Amino acid sequence: MMERFFYPRSVAVVGASPDRRKGGNAIFCNLKISLSAGLYPINPRYGEIEGIGCLPSVSDLPDAVDLVIAFIPAPSIPALIDECGRKGIRRVMIQSAGFAETGEAGRLLQERCKAVAKAYGIRLWGPNCMGVINGYTRFVASFMRPFIWEHNLKAGGVSVIVQSGMLAAGFLMQVISQGCFGLSKACSIGNRSDVNESDILEYLRDDQSTKVVGLYLESIADIPRFRKAVKTLGKPIVLLKGGISPFGAKAALSHTASLAEDAAVAEGFFRQLGIERAYDIMQLTDFLKALNGGNYYKKAGKGVAVVTFSGAAGIVTADHISRAGLELARLGSETTEAISNIFPQWMRPDNPVDIWPSLEQHPRSLTYSVILKALLEDLSVDAVFLHVFADPDPDGEYDLFLDSIGRVEKPVVGWMIGDATYFRGLKEKMEEKGILVYDEIGRGVEVLRLLMDGLCEKR
Amino acid sequence: MMERFFYPRSVAVVGASPDRRKGGNAIFCNLKISLSAGLYPINPRYGEIEGIGCLPSVSDLPDAVDLVIAFIPAPSIPALIDECGRKGIRRVMIQSAGFAETGEAGRLLQERCKAVAKAYGIRLWGPNCMGVINGYTRFVASFMRPFIWEHNLKAGGVSVIVQSGMLAAGFLMQVISQGCFGLSKACSIGNRSDVNESDILEYLRDDQSTKVVGLYLESIADIPRFRKAVKTLGKPIVLLKGGISPFGAKAALSHTASLAEDAAVAEGFFRQLGIERAYDIMQLTDFLKALNGGNYYKKAGKGVAVVTFSGAAGIVTADHISRAGLELARLGSETTEAISNIFPQWMRPDNPVDIWPSLEQHPRSLTYSVILKALLEDLSVDAVFLHVFADPDPDGEYDLFLDSIGRVEKPVVGWMIGDATYFRGLKEKMEEKGILVYDEIGRGVEVLRLLMDGLCEKR
Repeated sequence: MMERFFYPRSVAVVGASPDRRKGGNAIFCNLKISLSAGLYPINPRYGEIEGIGCLPSVSDLPDAVDLVIAFIPAPSIPALIDECGRKGIRRVMIQSAGFAETGEAGRLLQERCKAVAKAYGIRLWGPNCMGVINGYTRFVASFMRPFIWEHNLKAGGVSVIVQSGMLAAGFLMQVISQGCFGLSKACSIGNRSDVNESDILEYLRDDQSTKVVGLYLESIADIPRFRKAVKTLGKPIVLLKGGISPFGAKAALSHTASLAEDAAVAEGFFRQLGIERAYDIMQLTDFLKALNGGNYYKKAGKGVAVVTFSGAAGIVTADHISRAGLELARLGSETTEAISNIFPQWMRPDNPVDIWPSLEQHPRSLTYSVILKALLEDLSVDAVFLHVFADPDPDGEYDLFLDSIGRVEKPVVGWMIGDATYFRGLKEKMEEKGILVYDEIGRGVEVLRLLMDGLCEKR
Repeated sequence: MMERFFYPRSVAVVGASPDRRKGGNAIFCNLKISLSAGLYPINPRYGEIEGIGCLPSVSDLPDAVDLVIAFIPAPSIPALIDECGRKGIRRVMIQSAGFAETGEAGRLLQERCKAVAKAYGIRLWGPNCMGVINGYTRFVASFMRPFIWEHNLKAGGVSVIVQSGMLAAGFLMQVISQGCFGLSKACSIGNRSDVNESDILEYLRDDQSTKVVGLYLESIADIPRFRKAVKTLGKPIVLLKGGISPFGAKAALSHTASLAEDAAVAEGFFRQLGIERAYDIMQLTDFLKALNGGNYYKKAGKGVAVVTFSGAAGIVTADHISRAGLELARLGSETTEAISNIFPQWMRPDNPVDIWPSLEQHPRSLTYSVILKALLEDLSVDAVFLHVFADPDPDGEYDLFLDSIGRVEKPVVGWMIGDATYFRGLKEKMEEKGILVYDEIGRGVEVLRLLMDGLCEKR
C-alpha cells in the first residue's frame, strides 16, 4: 500500500495551475520531470496546463490513478475524497492547509476527511504537508520549484520523515542546495490524519536504498506501533524532537496539538530504543550525513587520538572529548616510535599529538601521512580527530598527503581553521577519503561520539 | 611602557631573512607595510633584505629602537637580550620557539632570558608566540604572509589576547579572511615569560578603540592582578578557557605547564567577575562579533519574541530559549492587535509568531515589516529571534522589508535556512541593519542570551 506513495505509476493533481507563481503549478512541473505518462492535471478552469490536457474532475480520469495530490481549498477536500473513493482511488495526499492546525472548525473538517477516506479504504497523507521526494526516481510531489532541486538532487541513503511543512521545505532546500547527502525518501507528513511516522518506518525497513532515517517529530502518533517499527527497522535513526522544554512544549501544543510527554520519560524511551538524538537542525544534517557515509556501526571503544598543529586547539578538543564521554586514547608503543622518528629529539609523542615541531622540520604531507598511518594501525586508537590549517598550500602538500592514504577505515573527523577561502576545496578532498570536516571543534566531536556509539548493536 | 609594543616608532628584526619561504622574511615584509622609516633588518649574513640595508647586529643600530623582534634560534636569545640591554632597548618580543614548551632545558633557557631582561628593565613578550597586530595602524609583527591580511584586515573594536601561537594564527586568519569583525589589538602572548594577560588588559582599559576583549587562556598568570584588571576594564570580556575537563587539563599541563585550577572554583571566579564564557572557537568569534556590534549592555529582561515561517522551527527555537534560561515574551495587546490585522481570522497571534498564514495572503515584505515593527515597539519584548527562508526572492521582498526598518535598537538575531546559494547576500543585508544571522538555531539563541545578560552592569 505505502509503496505507491513513493513509486506511483500514475498521479492526478487536483488544483493544478498554469500560473507559474502558484504552488499548484510547481507541484505539477515537478511531477512532469519524473512521470512521462500517467500524469493528469485536474482543474475545471483550464483546457491544458504545461502542455498536458486538463480534466475537469477526478471522475473524468480514464482509470483509478495510484495517487491523487490535492491542492485545493480545505472545505472542498471531503467531497474530493468521496469522488476519489468512487473512482477506486486508494491514495490521497492533501498538501493544502486549513485543517486541525487552524482550530476547532479545521479539526472537525479533518475528522470528516478521515471518515470519508476510511469508508473507502483510502490512505490519506497529510493534510498540511509538503509531500514527498524519491531521490532515486526523482519523483517530487511538492511545491518547491524545479530549478531548486533539478540539478542538485542526489540519490543516496538518507530518508527523512518530518512532522511539519515549512521546516521540511527549508531543510530539504538546504540539504539539496549544499549537496550534504543523497536522499532516498523525504516525507513531510504534516497533520498525520492517517499516514504517520510508523507507517513510513515500516515501509523503510524493507527499502533497500535507505541506510539511515532522520525524524523531526513533536509527538509519537502511536507509541506501541512506533516502538515496534523502530525495533525492527535495523537501520540507525536520528531524532530531532520538538517540545522537549517547558516553552517548547507549550508552543508544540498550539502547533500540532501535540501533548508533550513528560520530558524525562520520553528521553528514557528514546534511549532504550537506541535512537540517536539531535538537538538542532544543522546537527540533524551533520548526523545523517555521518551515518550515511560510514560503516562504523560496529561497537568501538572510546579512545580518540587528536592530531593538531596547535597545542591550544588540542586542549580545547580534549575538553570537548571529555564532555562527550569519550577518552583520549593511550598511544601504543609502535605508534610512539613511528611518530618519534619525525619529531625533534626533545619532544615525546603524546595525545593530543602536537605536530607543529614536525611541521617545522618536514613537509606537511610527510608529517600528516606518517602520523595518520600510525594512528590508523594502532589498535588502542578507535578514532582520530584531525586538525588542519587551511592556507594557500602552493606545493599541494595536502593533496600529497591525501593521495598517500586510502579511504579511512576508522572514524576520522577533521576540524578546519585558517583562511576561509581555502575551506571548501580542502574539505571536499578530505571528504572523498571519508574524513568528515567541520568548522567548529564541538560539532566534530559530537559526530565522532555518534559514530563511536555502536548504534545498531544497541537494538 | 606597553604602548610602544602596539605603536612602536622604530623596530629591529633580528633574524630577518631574504628567503620568501621563511618566517623571518614574512615578519619583515609585514612590518614594512606600516613602518616607512625606523625599520631595521638584522642579520650578519646579508647586505640587504627586501631593499633595506641589513645590519650585522643590534649594537650597530643608530639608536635604541622601541622594539626588537627576535626570530633566531632559542639558545642565542639570552646574549641578544643582553646586547639589547646595553643598547638601551626596553622591549623585546621573542617569536622563536624552543623554550619552556620543550621541557626542562628550555625552561631554564627561558628563566635566563627573564633574568637578563630584568637586570636591564626590559619587558619581554613571548617567547613562542605569534606576535601582535594593530588593526588601526596596520602594524603587524607576525609571521602570517602579507597577502593574507593586507587586503582584508579591518580596524574595529575587538581586541584578543591568546596564550598560544598557532591557534592565534588560525583564528586571526579566519577572522580576517571572513571579515567577521574589525580588530583593534590582537596579541599572542605565548609562554608569557614576562608580559601576561593582565599587562595587556591594563593597557586595553585606556585604549579607546577597544570595545570588547576576547581571551584564550589555559591558566591565569597572576590571579589577584587579573581580578583587578578585569574589574577596572569597563569593557566586556569573553573567555575561552582551555583545560576545563580532566582530559583537557592533562593536555594543558604538557602544553604550557598550566596547572588547571579546580574547575568548579574557576567557574565561580569567572562568573563573579562577570566574564562571559565561550566553549568553542567559532563561538568565541560569534560572541566577540555580537558584543562589538551592539550597545546592548544595559540590563534587559529575558523575554524573546520568535518570528517564524515554520511552526516546527518555532518549537525548536522555544526549546533552545528554555535551555538558555530565557523566556518566550508575552506579547502586549497592541502587538497582538497589529499582528491580527494581517493574520487570517482563525489565527490568534501567539509567540512564537507563525507568519506562514500571513505569507500566504500578503507579500513577505509587508508581513515581516508589520510584525517586526510591532515587536520592537512592545515593551514586554526584550529581544527578537527572526527566522528567514533563503530563496531566490525575485521581487526583492527581503530588500523591501529591510529598507523599511531602521537599524534595530533591541537585540535581534536571525536564523537562516533554505537554499544556501542565497545565504551570504541576505545575511550581509540583515547584518547592515544590526541583525546578526546564524545558520543554526542554538548559535543564535546563545548570542541572544549573551546580549541580554546585561554584561557591563555586573561589574
